Amino acid sequence: MDKTFSQWKKQCLSKVDLSKKGSVDEDIEHVVSLINSCEEYFTTSSCSGRIILVDAAPENSDVQKQNCIWLFVSHQNCTSDDMMSGLAKSSGDAVLKFEPFVLHVQCRRLEDAQLMHSVAINSGFRNSGLTVSKTGKIIMAVRSTHGLEVPLSHEGKLLVGHEYIHFLTQIANRKMEENLRRIHRFYHNLQSAVTTERLQKLQIPGPPSSQELQCSPNRVETEEEKNKISMYRRRRKREQHQTGCYHGDASTSVQEQDYCLDLFT
Amino acid sequence: MDKTFSQWKKQCLSKVDLSKKGSVDEDIEHVVSLINSCEEYFTTSSCSGRIILVDAAPENSDVQKQNCIWLFVSHQNCTSDDMMSGLAKSSGDAVLKFEPFVLHVQCRRLEDAQLMHSVAINSGFRNSGLTVSKTGKIIMAVRSTHGLEVPLSHEGKLLVGHEYIHFLTQIANRKMEENLRRIHRFYHNLQSAVTTERLQKLQIPGPPSSQELQCSPNRVETEEEKNKISMYRRRRKREQHQTGCYHGDASTSVQEQDYCLDLFT
Repeated sequence: MDKTFSQWKKQCLSKVDLSKKGSVDEDIEHVVSLINSCEEYFTTSSCSGRIILVDAAPENSDVQKQNCIWLFVSHQNCTSDDMMSGLAKSSGDAVLKFEPFVLHVQCRRLEDAQLMHSVAINSGFRNSGLTVSKTGKIIMAVRSTHGLEVPLSHEGKLLVGHEYIHFLTQIANRKMEENLRRIHRFYHNLQSAVTTERLQKLQIPGPPSSQELQCSPNRVETEEEKNKISMYRRRRKREQHQTGCYHGDASTSVQEQDYCLDLFT
Repeated sequence: MDKTFSQWKKQCLSKVDLSKKGSVDEDIEHVVSLINSCEEYFTTSSCSGRIILVDAAPENSDVQKQNCIWLFVSHQNCTSDDMMSGLAKSSGDAVLKFEPFVLHVQCRRLEDAQLMHSVAINSGFRNSGLTVSKTGKIIMAVRSTHGLEVPLSHEGKLLVGHEYIHFLTQIANRKMEENLRRIHRFYHNLQSAVTTERLQKLQIPGPPSSQELQCSPNRVETEEEKNKISMYRRRRKREQHQTGCYHGDASTSVQEQDYCLDLFT
């Protein structure tokens, strides 16, 4: 199983990146490097987060449903002029979306995936979750509740004013900034968690393998990091409690809180 | 472990439903009943999906960030008059959201969770995933990529026209209808999958326990259902392939396709 995992990792990391861009997004290069430097993990896909304006065929058209045109894409903050020039090209139903950081990580063992999942949840990526395939592949998907999806035009006709586009651009940019803050938290929490795991392994009789010390070899866990980790464990427990045994408007408290956090933090 | 699971199930299902509504949403009562009639599963939270208008304190205000007011909530289709009356009450930053079906299912064993996960993915709930806690609790979260989040007012001032609100209402209602179609698919796929599992168990020497036949005891898997299941397996493989070893704009194809499916199917 471990052998299979290292084979998968070698094979995946040696492949050409088949994404449009062909490389990892700048804002998450350090995250992807940290993960791939750990023997327990490797990344299979990622996107740092983006503001995207897509033009889709109107519902009543015969055009194939998957046929979407990108009017504008940015992995950084953007201006309302960027939006307006994108919208000027719309001939269908244009929709502005903010798509947050997404990352797929293949994990060696279930406990490795649990650690990665806990770090993701506690960094604000509440929709993260595992996939366990029958062939033994364990993938942890880092996902946020943090989004924006705003229809703006119909059959090429803009349905809102410039003032609204300006307001919307500010909101999309704020979401992009919050997304970067969460990526930053994720990176530091992962670094702390991985270091803690390493230190725990060091307490087990027998010297660690060189691989076990691969992740940030010069780092020593600080008191602050230790406190952070225990705080995250407490928060995680609280979140699990919130979703326990509720039906009807079950997810209200969590969704409502997410919404507020998303829009304002 | 099995004993612990049945204890958890008994305890959870005997609890008072602590949600605002205090009961399971009408449109998913049959789904929740099917799941809870299976010894391998029980539901811990659910929401059938809703159109919700929330009013949040503007970013620059001192009001506590979690402080959101519900201006309007509907688990069914709604009218632009509903929206307008809700918006009339806004004194902060109102946002219209479509929140799709969400369901949390505690699963007895990992393989039970894998089956539930596969059914969810193949019914269109692409953001579904597992959580495995250190205490052995396995929760499968059924989540959709299907959403809408549209800021509409700032400091109580409406930023868009009535025509746009009317257009938006139609889109929200279409998403609600697509959400119901996915719930329907999920119910039937789960029923087929559970029946297949039962039939497979029947081939193992020794009679099944009465519990093993608890789920829809009178159903026999039809040819159509068998074909459905194998088709879903093929689709699932394709989806896994789509997210394999891509970085940069990794999730593009999937997200773009989701967007189109979401808006038009």
